[in-house]
Amino acid sequence: MLDAATRAEFQVEGHWAMARRHRIRWIQCDIYAHINHAAYFTMFEDMRIDWWLASGGRFGADAEGPVVASIEAKYLRPGHFNEDVLLTVRAVSFRRSSFIHEYGLWRDGLLCSGRAVCVIVNNATGAKAPISDALRQLMLTRDQAIAEG
Amino acid sequence: MLDAATRAEFQVEGHWAMARRHRIRWIQCDIYAHINHAAYFTMFEDMRIDWWLASGGRFGADAEGPVVASIEAKYLRPGHFNEDVLLTVRAVSFRRSSFIHEYGLWRDGLLCSGRAVCVIVNNATGAKAPISDALRQLMLTRDQAIAEG
Amino acid sequence: MLDAATRAEFQVEGHWAMARRHRIRWIQCDIYAHINHAAYFTMFEDMRIDWWLASGGRFGADAEGPVVASIEAKYLRPGHFNEDVLLTVRAVSFRRSSFIHEYGLWRDGLLCSGRAVCVIVNNATGAKAPISDALRQLMLTRDQAIAEG
Amino acid sequence: MLDAATRAEFQVEGHWAMARRHRIRWIQCDIYAHINHAAYFTMFEDMRIDWWLASGGRFGADAEGPVVASIEAKYLRPGHFNEDVLLTVRAVSFRRSSFIHEYGLWRDGLLCSGRAVCVIVNNATGAKAPISDALRQLMLTRDQAIAEG
Repeated sequence: MLDAATRAEFQVEGHWAMARRHRIRWIQCDIYAHINHAAYFTMFEDMRIDWWLASGGRFGADAEGPVVASIEAKYLRPGHFNEDVLLTVRAVSFRRSSFIHEYGLWRDGLLCSGRAVCVIVNNATGAKAPISDALRQLMLTRDQAIAEG
Repeated sequence: MLDAATRAEFQVEGHWAMARRHRIRWIQCDIYAHINHAAYFTMFEDMRIDWWLASGGRFGADAEGPVVASIEAKYLRPGHFNEDVLLTVRAVSFRRSSFIHEYGLWRDGLLCSGRAVCVIVNNATGAKAPISDALRQLMLTRDQAIAEG
Repeated sequence: MLDAATRAEFQVEGHWAMARRHRIRWIQCDIYAHINHAAYFTMFEDMRIDWWLASGGRFGADAEGPVVASIEAKYLRPGHFNEDVLLTVRAVSFRRSSFIHEYGLWRDGLLCSGRAVCVIVNNATGAKAPISDALRQLMLTRDQAIAEG
Repeated sequence: MLDAATRAEFQVEGHWAMARRHRIRWIQCDIYAHINHAAYFTMFEDMRIDWWLASGGRFGADAEGPVVASIEAKYLRPGHFNEDVLLTVRAVSFRRSSFIHEYGLWRDGLLCSGRAVCVIVNNATGAKAPISDALRQLMLTRDQAIAEG
């Protein structure tokens, strides 16, 4: 999903499971003409959802799905209106019912990085649910994640 | 809910059922340092929800509630970050299962006006629901709305 | 920009100047699992900006650009998370320094239509600016807009 | 700004420099009827801005102001539509031109905590600016922050 030409175009570093191009929208920018700091979290949310759907997951009142327990972002350089950026996502590690996601927003290198601890919750019961074997395998191979715990 | 001092402070005109003060947030403003045009609709949504709750309504999967069939806004003068504004709402007319809402955002007079056609829908069935006698009376007296049709 | 296959896929009607595919985001949906009514205005804003840039315009403190004087939306059927929709935009008429935009959001036909009155304003002076001959020609031919006034 | 009655009402713990009541808006909630995780960052942004303005700061193209270098949130329990919550902010430490902010969102105890590293930047030059003596004193006394470095 992230070919050599795209990696070169946005100067992406490291292994990423998935990537998506995005053009920065007017609504994402603030009075100082920068991407608002909270808009990054919504872009990362888009990637988390893409990742979950592409990994065999679904959303719904009776589904199991990832709940964000904590999340952080580091802002290295500002982004601006109408710029073309690349969004990336990967799982870096997982335990029985949780995983750690990392995100990147790239344009001539990294503008912003993100990291979230996600817990798989059964929406019908509210209880934690174990990560399926299929998803564990996918994270190991596709994402190059590490099994912990 | 809209006393003479408040009317004078914001130079409000006309009769309004409800009002609420608001300070314009950083997130509501765009690169040109104006309130984004879509942010007005969310402020009007806040007033619609306040109005519905204050009129005996509630929200929920089994509740009857207003669905916006159409909405418009007219932008007379721009608003800016950190300004104190007044939001107002009133029903101006109603039929069997719909009503027309008007909204205002005021600061030294009107900055933006809004108008929505709302249909009462039963969330459990998706069917239109008649406006209750109690709400009809409230709109006639509190809002000075006109019964139509 | 809107070929026959795309028109058929989304059951688009009428002539449109530009179109863009979009997948409905989690952030755009509310508790009732529908696209929030205000989110449509931001999608239409994206189309207005695309249209302006594709028509030779630019954005900036010293640029001429469209200011929304009024805007409305009509909600025909609800949209939902993760659905693929098509966004369309066209100018339907123009005067010396203003034009009327129409927008559509399509999925098995029209879900939501929009209409905005836009005034060209010189950002440096705040004064109205006449529409250039080039843009008038583009609206006449590409958009099939009508010259008024 | 945070009296004993308010502390008891929301079961607030610890010392906070400033607090503000907020009622959760419809727009802040997602399909699962919870506050969207990114909406917390915008509420914390509101508190950061209040804090800056109340500390003698201002915003503008020629002003010095806080830029978020990194930010994180921990989600302990979900929040819901129309709930009354309390937002709190404090500086916990500072260096020559940066400070660490903490945020809380409270309802029967803590729902969500936040932590940001903020750097004071001169908007005209883009350069880091030292924290004024007045602000240092205010952080020491009002916020009970620690001087580091």
